[in-house]
Amino acid sequence: MDPFHCLTFLTDYGLEDGFVAACHGVALQIAPNTRVIDITHLVPPGDIRRGAAVLAQTVRYLPAAVHVAVVDPGVGTARRAIAVAAGDSVFVGPDNGLLSWAAAEAGGAIAAVSLTNRALWLDTVTATFHGRDIFMPAAAHLAAGTPLAQAGDELDVASLVTLPRPETRLREGGADAEVVTVDRFGNAQLSVTGTDAARAGLVPGAAVTLAWEGQQHAVAFGSTFGEVAPGELVGYPDSAGYVAIAVNGGSAAQRLGLRPGTRVTLTVTK
Amino acid sequence: MDPFHCLTFLTDYGLEDGFVAACHGVALQIAPNTRVIDITHLVPPGDIRRGAAVLAQTVRYLPAAVHVAVVDPGVGTARRAIAVAAGDSVFVGPDNGLLSWAAAEAGGAIAAVSLTNRALWLDTVTATFHGRDIFMPAAAHLAAGTPLAQAGDELDVASLVTLPRPETRLREGGADAEVVTVDRFGNAQLSVTGTDAARAGLVPGAAVTLAWEGQQHAVAFGSTFGEVAPGELVGYPDSAGYVAIAVNGGSAAQRLGLRPGTRVTLTVTK
Amino acid sequence: MDPFHCLTFLTDYGLEDGFVAACHGVALQIAPNTRVIDITHLVPPGDIRRGAAVLAQTVRYLPAAVHVAVVDPGVGTARRAIAVAAGDSVFVGPDNGLLSWAAAEAGGAIAAVSLTNRALWLDTVTATFHGRDIFMPAAAHLAAGTPLAQAGDELDVASLVTLPRPETRLREGGADAEVVTVDRFGNAQLSVTGTDAARAGLVPGAAVTLAWEGQQHAVAFGSTFGEVAPGELVGYPDSAGYVAIAVNGGSAAQRLGLRPGTRVTLTVTK
Repeated sequence: MDPFHCLTFLTDYGLEDGFVAACHGVALQIAPNTRVIDITHLVPPGDIRRGAAVLAQTVRYLPAAVHVAVVDPGVGTARRAIAVAAGDSVFVGPDNGLLSWAAAEAGGAIAAVSLTNRALWLDTVTATFHGRDIFMPAAAHLAAGTPLAQAGDELDVASLVTLPRPETRLREGGADAEVVTVDRFGNAQLSVTGTDAARAGLVPGAAVTLAWEGQQHAVAFGSTFGEVAPGELVGYPDSAGYVAIAVNGGSAAQRLGLRPGTRVTLTVTK
Repeated sequence: MDPFHCLTFLTDYGLEDGFVAACHGVALQIAPNTRVIDITHLVPPGDIRRGAAVLAQTVRYLPAAVHVAVVDPGVGTARRAIAVAAGDSVFVGPDNGLLSWAAAEAGGAIAAVSLTNRALWLDTVTATFHGRDIFMPAAAHLAAGTPLAQAGDELDVASLVTLPRPETRLREGGADAEVVTVDRFGNAQLSVTGTDAARAGLVPGAAVTLAWEGQQHAVAFGSTFGEVAPGELVGYPDSAGYVAIAVNGGSAAQRLGLRPGTRVTLTVTK
Repeated sequence: MDPFHCLTFLTDYGLEDGFVAACHGVALQIAPNTRVIDITHLVPPGDIRRGAAVLAQTVRYLPAAVHVAVVDPGVGTARRAIAVAAGDSVFVGPDNGLLSWAAAEAGGAIAAVSLTNRALWLDTVTATFHGRDIFMPAAAHLAAGTPLAQAGDELDVASLVTLPRPETRLREGGADAEVVTVDRFGNAQLSVTGTDAARAGLVPGAAVTLAWEGQQHAVAFGSTFGEVAPGELVGYPDSAGYVAIAVNGGSAAQRLGLRPGTRVTLTVTK
């Protein structure tokens, strides 16, 4: 395998401790010519679904790389540490589903290993910081040219843990979907793609009712939040290709109380 | 135009999503040898004045670069996407005033284009993420050597949107000014420069009254917050050259309730 | 002195202003081939002990580097600006104890200078931003090959300000210790090392009472938080080698109200 020029890094480590920097230091010493792109380190602690969604939606804009992702509430227990080849990239992290959506987005897992080759780990491995002690050094060795097969025992890709997809159902004139993520602006991304939504009649110009748990709101569908007046609700295909609900100049999540996992119904009213 | 070795990046995208990383990925693929410096991504959502102030006050310490700034509440509407040459740098972002103070700081706009050359954009352009789809790829091409004139249609620099400056008035023994920014430490930066303030008698050693909206506080003027006792108010020329109000070891903004836009009066009392 | 390939950076500057980027810009212009690793910029404003702890616990995973650290409530007053050689690295920052634990961790200070050579500073030095105007340019010159002795007047390493260590006492069947830091996950790191704790009987499998200020909690000792049920308290040797108190899947600091500086007693009950 040719060396990678880029390594990316996503965790729930936060930015106030030295955890991320320690991993950067480990990477720089093993793969000094590899550029590191931090995706985010502000995944809520232990929130595997959030990490999986951010990784999957970002990866298509990243170069071929070793993508290291660590949201790992089971660190130190029996869960496997894995490296998964998909597309022209390799994904490294815990086998808890975190990597599964991104690997699918990259074209699907084509090979995988359990990171059992201790020669690629740091000399001392702690029970609680495998990002620094196992994932990052193994990933940096892969970036520097170590072949995947040398990183550990081969795994059947069918044995990898896969995160369930949010339930999404299309019907004539509407869709049932789930809030996948809420971004910094308070835009609530739903699990239905803009393309699928359009097939169900949820097109720019449509007047739509958004409903859940007894709540009901009128939402104008458009192409961008700037098309409605400030303070108004709008549904639009977002920059990742999914339908999102926004308030122009405000936070839809705050206004409506939408949170990841909320199940909603969209119905075209005209 | 010679290629730039540095690209800088300022947005209101926050750090919890993958938005910033997607832009880094786009830049790295187009301009692999260009170093990227993140200025900040924590501009409050849509706060163009805050973004403009941080960019203008940081740019003099940055190398010649393509400076990409995106605080863009009008994304997807008719506002223009621009690249502006000023000094030895190029500023890229929305034409909403965000770039105007920094361009002036760099010596003033000498040429500008509307980023209409789609060959420099990503293949697919979404309505809500021009930072990733238009601004960053165009900027990376400029950093990699594409001449400004090839980025789009030439614009008259006089047609660029300019952000109004805060109102500042000097008088014998005082000044009227506006709070421009509040920094992490709670220091409130005013719109009057230290040099101008000194001309009006607001010099280290002066006793000053700070007043606004019925409030009135005695402030000792000095050179640094460490010159007054812990917990005391002090006015001093800050690291960007403006008068700032601080509390030694505390937050002036919190203590006094000062916020960007607050109009204050400074009067020398002895 | 050979040039360093790496420069690291730790401050209390926060991420919402342009302060960190201005320093990056200064470094890039003086030492264009040096990689910069940000350790953290979220040290609470002025919290020297927190900065010292994060630096000391991260530095062993970083390459040989010029380590710049600035938590500097005394900026602009008489405190010295220093560069300290320790191990194969150089530490640059204010002489207020911030660097002392990291220098000890790196093998102990072997030489030091007061950064009095103005040729290494920026041309204009403000009273409140020595990170940008003095520390970073001097550090970048050191990274680019300027010998330590040329950075300023030699200092006796015995004259450097040293931060007192937290009080820690081992006894048969227990220990008295202090909370050193609380990390993002709410894990409370104590001042006693895992190795010392084990000598006192605080080993995986031990049942322990954690007590302070009238509070008392049963804590199971183990190797990682995943060994206890979700929501349960656990003590374990953390990734920096110290005993930490955690809640599996939760925040021990929040549950127990532990904060840096809290003095606790650990007693083996069986």
